[in-house]
Amino acid sequence: MDYQQRINKIQAVLRRKKLDGLLVSQPENRRFLSGYSALDHGIGETAGLLLIPAKGDSWLLTDFRFKLQAEAEADFLHIGLYPKGLLALLREMLPDLGIRTLGFESHYTLHSFAEKLNGLSEKTGVRFVPTTDLVEKLRVIKDEDEIAKLRASVDLNEKVFEEVYSTIGPGQTEREIALIIESTMRRMGAQSPSFDTIVATGGNSALPHAVPGMKAIETGQPVMIDMGLILDGYCSDMTRTFVIGEPDERFQAIHRLVRRAQRAAIAAIRAGVAAAKVDAKARDIIAAAGYGQAFGHSLGHGVGLAVHEEPRLSSRNGKKLQTGMVVTVEPGIYIPEWGGVRLENMVVVREDGCELFNKNSTWLDL
Amino acid sequence: MDYQQRINKIQAVLRRKKLDGLLVSQPENRRFLSGYSALDHGIGETAGLLLIPAKGDSWLLTDFRFKLQAEAEADFLHIGLYPKGLLALLREMLPDLGIRTLGFESHYTLHSFAEKLNGLSEKTGVRFVPTTDLVEKLRVIKDEDEIAKLRASVDLNEKVFEEVYSTIGPGQTEREIALIIESTMRRMGAQSPSFDTIVATGGNSALPHAVPGMKAIETGQPVMIDMGLILDGYCSDMTRTFVIGEPDERFQAIHRLVRRAQRAAIAAIRAGVAAAKVDAKARDIIAAAGYGQAFGHSLGHGVGLAVHEEPRLSSRNGKKLQTGMVVTVEPGIYIPEWGGVRLENMVVVREDGCELFNKNSTWLDL
Repeated sequence: MDYQQRINKIQAVLRRKKLDGLLVSQPENRRFLSGYSALDHGIGETAGLLLIPAKGDSWLLTDFRFKLQAEAEADFLHIGLYPKGLLALLREMLPDLGIRTLGFESHYTLHSFAEKLNGLSEKTGVRFVPTTDLVEKLRVIKDEDEIAKLRASVDLNEKVFEEVYSTIGPGQTEREIALIIESTMRRMGAQSPSFDTIVATGGNSALPHAVPGMKAIETGQPVMIDMGLILDGYCSDMTRTFVIGEPDERFQAIHRLVRRAQRAAIAAIRAGVAAAKVDAKARDIIAAAGYGQAFGHSLGHGVGLAVHEEPRLSSRNGKKLQTGMVVTVEPGIYIPEWGGVRLENMVVVREDGCELFNKNSTWLDL
Repeated sequence: MDYQQRINKIQAVLRRKKLDGLLVSQPENRRFLSGYSALDHGIGETAGLLLIPAKGDSWLLTDFRFKLQAEAEADFLHIGLYPKGLLALLREMLPDLGIRTLGFESHYTLHSFAEKLNGLSEKTGVRFVPTTDLVEKLRVIKDEDEIAKLRASVDLNEKVFEEVYSTIGPGQTEREIALIIESTMRRMGAQSPSFDTIVATGGNSALPHAVPGMKAIETGQPVMIDMGLILDGYCSDMTRTFVIGEPDERFQAIHRLVRRAQRAAIAAIRAGVAAAKVDAKARDIIAAAGYGQAFGHSLGHGVGLAVHEEPRLSSRNGKKLQTGMVVTVEPGIYIPEWGGVRLENMVVVREDGCELFNKNSTWLDL
């Protein structure tokens, strides 16, 4: 991957916006621009930031603990350590680099840190300017290299599902199955899950974001599994809902309905179509069957280095889809006490349609 | 746990600070005050916020996906859903609740969201006031119930280490061992690891925060394992460094030195001693042996619902330790290429000393 080329693009944006530089704190943005793969421990404990001047060489600022990894992974960058904290280092560096106006990422900067930047501004005269989505805008369109990685991530995720699915039986608890899934992911080569695996059975599957508990699988009850992994930095995300034993009429009808809504939405995806229109394709089908209130979330979201990113497939997003965007399509119907059905696939938007990453082999058509 | 009692304490703080209410966004603060255990997907995707008026009933604000879990876990709170986003809901609720001055958590509010609060302020006249550490100050002193949970978390973490340690041998990769550790944690009842498990061998152990890779264990090389788990919401954190086969003279000498530094620091811990003084106890011993530069991080950190919290055992923290604080003690020596040794235990500060949570059985005294 030619990270310098991505940085060049950001530098052009900075010059257009009359910014002398940009401080990149958002972890996926940082990785996208540098290849540096260290993980933050939450927003309060960063593994480092990029300092990208509008012209010239860029810097990776980090602390002692990450020095060797930074040098190994981002050897085209200068590495700056901040033993006395980031603010002290910035105070030293910014004048040397001639930076008078520095952008920071408003969506990944704590209010308390922005206040500290204000304090530094008073001392140094450097203006700190909140920015949003400068790097995200580059990330939203995937190149073929990234698409290949996303495809591979989905492939592996499906292999894990197939392997675990064949072993699921009555009596196993949600937590037990989630554990087996996440272990299998790692054993088969994933870096980690891309989010906490959801295994929800019976009435628990009525919670779209259930936490796996000690409830055991019962024959005839819905089982919802929402799982994803990270491979080579790129995320997958997939949901399957099924029944061990014979599904009853109601489950079959709802599953068929959700699947029909999903197929219709996928068929509508191509470059130039508004995201809201794709959401409506699925939502209208579910609403027409009388379940409109039971589908309370949006249809899907972008996936890339982050498991949830732009674009949102939601009724509130009127923007048009573009070639190279990668999204999930995941309609669901949730009925308190009874349970829920959600089905989720991932596609990449193409000029005349979309490519479905998921293979048919894990489809549970009823 | 009587969560209402904790909320009462915060309400008293609010009245003292002339705030009409507090918006709690920080996930561990939220859980501490309510028992609601849903997990955020990063700071950008909250599982909900608490709205605590200075007087009267408190609210858990969340979205559709978390409704059932919120009702089940926090039944003493009112549940408010925000189908049109948090801002729209606040705009409705704040006048009804008579809230004119609302605190928010500066350390867990994005700059971009604080800007939106400013916009709301202009429309409604409500003043939004950044606060820090209101709930954290309560969390830093653990009650006996929390101490019991932390002790149980350390106990289980040690059991996992013992089980895995007995199976580690040459040829296994770092990633393989990390995977086995995390699977064993979950199998033995942990909710999840409390952070990404570190397994670093040979030169990799010179990186204090190494990511487990494909490097295999070799006889005679240092192996560093830093692992922790979450049990009942409470975290553990422990590091062991050892050698498969015969450790050489250099490893033995460095291990002994680190262990000596750790023992000295632990012996110095009791209520009333400054955190910096405890850090110095270990640091002086390591520096006197000529390794001062090789111990680049602070001695330890608080542990509770979060794996890293107050108080820091660092040279920059002059504050005194208090009864009921729980901290790690983890000196380390890191030598590029050769490797590193870090040893980490957890203790609770008592009036006249401290209680070590770790049992001797996993000590690898050389």
